[in-house]
Amino acid sequence: MNRDERPIGVFDSGVGGLTVMRELVEVLPNEHMIYLGDTARVPYGNRGADTVRQYALNASRVLLNREVKALVVACNTASAHAIDALRERLDVPVIDVIEPVARRATDLSEDGAIGMIGTRGTVASNCYRDSIKSIDPQRPVIQVACPLLVPLAEEGWTSGSVTNQVTEHYLSEFSNTSIASLILGCTHYPILRNTLEEVTRSVIPSEPQLVDSASATAEATAETLQTAGIRRVPQSSEQPQTQRARTVDFLLTDISPSFQETAERFFGTDPGTFQHIDIV
Amino acid sequence: MNRDERPIGVFDSGVGGLTVMRELVEVLPNEHMIYLGDTARVPYGNRGADTVRQYALNASRVLLNREVKALVVACNTASAHAIDALRERLDVPVIDVIEPVARRATDLSEDGAIGMIGTRGTVASNCYRDSIKSIDPQRPVIQVACPLLVPLAEEGWTSGSVTNQVTEHYLSEFSNTSIASLILGCTHYPILRNTLEEVTRSVIPSEPQLVDSASATAEATAETLQTAGIRRVPQSSEQPQTQRARTVDFLLTDISPSFQETAERFFGTDPGTFQHIDIV
Repeated sequence: MNRDERPIGVFDSGVGGLTVMRELVEVLPNEHMIYLGDTARVPYGNRGADTVRQYALNASRVLLNREVKALVVACNTASAHAIDALRERLDVPVIDVIEPVARRATDLSEDGAIGMIGTRGTVASNCYRDSIKSIDPQRPVIQVACPLLVPLAEEGWTSGSVTNQVTEHYLSEFSNTSIASLILGCTHYPILRNTLEEVTRSVIPSEPQLVDSASATAEATAETLQTAGIRRVPQSSEQPQTQRARTVDFLLTDISPSFQETAERFFGTDPGTFQHIDIV
Repeated sequence: MNRDERPIGVFDSGVGGLTVMRELVEVLPNEHMIYLGDTARVPYGNRGADTVRQYALNASRVLLNREVKALVVACNTASAHAIDALRERLDVPVIDVIEPVARRATDLSEDGAIGMIGTRGTVASNCYRDSIKSIDPQRPVIQVACPLLVPLAEEGWTSGSVTNQVTEHYLSEFSNTSIASLILGCTHYPILRNTLEEVTRSVIPSEPQLVDSASATAEATAETLQTAGIRRVPQSSEQPQTQRARTVDFLLTDISPSFQETAERFFGTDPGTFQHIDIV
């Protein structure tokens, strides 16, 4: 029985990755986790690829110094631009948010077309298209950038007329397609899930299934730990955790007054205190 | 006759300061200017004060290395958190975007209350309130944070139903006040001026005059140069520039594919090429 006590490192540019954390602590309740939000440099979505790669490498160094046994890159932009560099340089398994979602969307849609929404940066990187093509080269993929959804999610405008209209504006790009699944290719979007489902039903006649990064990534992480034999199993004397991960440490490169409120919205519950950390 | 050939340095976190640049090149057509947009670290609005101060000091060092004769901090957040540190450390005049606007708003409104809208960070800093109080301690100031206006401006949603509703949502906070002037306390807001004027007329019965940072700051800069005797006057043999500054160099800490389009919207015309620069 493996009892690898080392923590899992989870990295994101800001708060979006907390939707992935929320699933991770549900799926892996016996693990220690360290979340690093690079809030001093958020958002990554509109930045150049080299800049994002450098930021991700810097962040991973902080987590490796804390002896993580695996790294979850809970950020689409960093997954798109930095995953190869991270896998090349790190000695621990690196789980990204793209491949697990691409695989699930491909499985769900048989041979139908797949839609994908995300930030401008994620769309321009073609990361989901490339990942899907590596699974099924014939599969049509239609991508739409939705840059205003992130600020709406962060501000808590998760429903209502404005968010509906903005969502309609973007999703109507799919109205003449027959996509069978729609990838929510940004970790912020689970916050808007109700609106996205409602607008999908009203403007996309093919009624695609929505696939978000949080649950697919959490399951891929559990599988990776299991395969690598580094999943923590509680001692028989230990009360198994059924609701939440054993401990979660939150590190932020910048702490602003409004962060706590936004973090709670994304994590689904009070994440507790944040520790400030400088990344040079 | 003074012929100080040194350039004017203009600093912003991103593209917002280009609305100030646009006015500066109109008001000071005979000057060289260098614009530095810290796009690798944008936006400053939701970051902590210490972080913003450090970023501003780093950026000013880059401009001083290029021998600027004055520094315009064309960013509300940096003006709020870093202006004292910059004035303490720099040997050149430093012009901010807050004091000139506070002065103009105070002049325009006689003894009426003054409204102010800006990012969450600018509002929390109380910089406009403090600046107005230093001019007229009795003056009531009402501040409202409007975090969604920046992304709308950057995405070019400058008019239409969504932008109207978002603007109404924020400005209706002033509907029961009798503000005589309304400060647009963010360099992005001149882009939304038409919508802001229209919504102001419909939801604020006192019909305040709008005061934006661009023209007030450009005039304050001209005055400062004049007073310090460092304004550039063209040689008699030289054709005076009547439309645009002599030369403008644009430096960015990160260049993304969508930047050119956004920059053109803010600068009002094609700003030409951008040079990438690293700030360590």
